[in-house]
Amino acid sequence: MTSHLDATRESYDTVAEDYAVTVRPLFDQDPLGRAMLAAFAEKVRGPVADVGCGPGHVTAHLASLGLDVSGVDLSPKMIELARRQYPDLRFDVGSMTALDVPDGSLGGLVAWWSIFHLPPETLPAVFAGFRRTLVIGGRLLIGFHAGDERLSPERAYGHPVSYDAYLLRPEWVAELLGQAGFEVTARLTMAGKKRPQACLHARAV
Amino acid sequence: MTSHLDATRESYDTVAEDYAVTVRPLFDQDPLGRAMLAAFAEKVRGPVADVGCGPGHVTAHLASLGLDVSGVDLSPKMIELARRQYPDLRFDVGSMTALDVPDGSLGGLVAWWSIFHLPPETLPAVFAGFRRTLVIGGRLLIGFHAGDERLSPERAYGHPVSYDAYLLRPEWVAELLGQAGFEVTARLTMAGKKRPQACLHARAV
Repeated sequence: MTSHLDATRESYDTVAEDYAVTVRPLFDQDPLGRAMLAAFAEKVRGPVADVGCGPGHVTAHLASLGLDVSGVDLSPKMIELARRQYPDLRFDVGSMTALDVPDGSLGGLVAWWSIFHLPPETLPAVFAGFRRTLVIGGRLLIGFHAGDERLSPERAYGHPVSYDAYLLRPEWVAELLGQAGFEVTARLTMAGKKRPQACLHARAV
Repeated sequence: MTSHLDATRESYDTVAEDYAVTVRPLFDQDPLGRAMLAAFAEKVRGPVADVGCGPGHVTAHLASLGLDVSGVDLSPKMIELARRQYPDLRFDVGSMTALDVPDGSLGGLVAWWSIFHLPPETLPAVFAGFRRTLVIGGRLLIGFHAGDERLSPERAYGHPVSYDAYLLRPEWVAELLGQAGFEVTARLTMAGKKRPQACLHARAV
C-alpha cells in the first residue's frame, strides 16, 4: 500500500467519530447532492458499490432508495462505525484503487467526495478500475470539490491529519472518464459553503 | 402583444392536446430533471409560479412535493387542459414577459423549458421581471436546451407550428441572471435525447 493511502487511512481512523457526526447533518442539508443520488438511483440496475463510504450514511441513503448497495472504505474505523450504525448493510475494508469485485459485476458505482485524496496522476488507473467492475451500461456517480489546488490540512474535524486533498477541474475529470470508457451524461457544478463542488454522472460504454 | 408571443401562443393552442400526451411520459423518464425540481422544492419558501406551465404536469409535480404553486401559460388551450387535469390547482393565462403578480410576492419561480421561445435579446428584460416578482433570497429554476442555434420548425407534435426556438449557452444565461440580480448557485448540463440540456438554480440577491 502506498504512502498516500496509509496517510488517508490513518487520518480517517483518527477523525472517524467526529467526522461521522459532522457529515451526516451536512448531507441532510444538501438537497442538490441528494437529488444527484436520487437520479442515479432511478437509472441504475443491479448491485452498487459506494467507494470511500466513510461512516455509511450515503450507502444507507442509497439503500433507502431501493438499491442493492454495499460500502467500501480504506479506514477500518470508518467501516466499524458504518457496521454499527447500519447493521443490515454490507461494509468492507478496501481501497477504491483495487476493488475486490469481479469484472462487470456491478450495475453502479458511487464515489461520493472520496476520490479527492488520490494524487491526480493516479486517477486514470482508478477510473479504469471503476470501469472494469461495471457492466456495459453501468452507471457511475462522482462528487468532488472543484478547483485545481492541492490542500494539505494539518487538522480536520478537531484532530491532526496527514492527508492531502486535491481539488479537481470537472472538465479534466470528465476527460479522464471518457478515456477510461465512460460517457459523461450529466455534469453539475454548484456553489459550496467553502468552495465550488461538482458531480458527474457517467455511463460505462 | 408582439408577434413572437402571438406565434408561440397560437402554435401551442394548436398542438396542446398532442403536446400534453407526449411530454408527460418524457417527464416521468427524466430523473435528473425531477431531481432538479426536488432540490428546488427543498430550498424554496413561499408561493411559487411555474411560468410557461403548458398542460400543468410540472406544476402538479411541484404541488405533490408540498409547494404552494400556480401555473401561468400564454396559451389559453394549455391552461384549459391544465385546469381540467388538475382542478385543485390554480392556472392563469398570462405571459412570463409581463407577470401579473406584485413585486417581491413570490418565494420561487420555475421556467421549465419555456424561455426558449423568447428572442434572446428579450431575456434581460424577462429576467429583470422574474427578479421583480421574487422576495430577496427567492429561488429561480430554469431549464432549457443548450446550444447557440435558432430553430424554426414547421411542424411539431404532429401539427404545423410557427414559433422559433432558441438554443441558449448556459454561461450566457448565467451571466444575464447575474446582471438581473441573481446569484447562480448550481448549473447542470446533461446529454438530451436530441441535444444537450441545461438547468440553472439561482437565488435572488
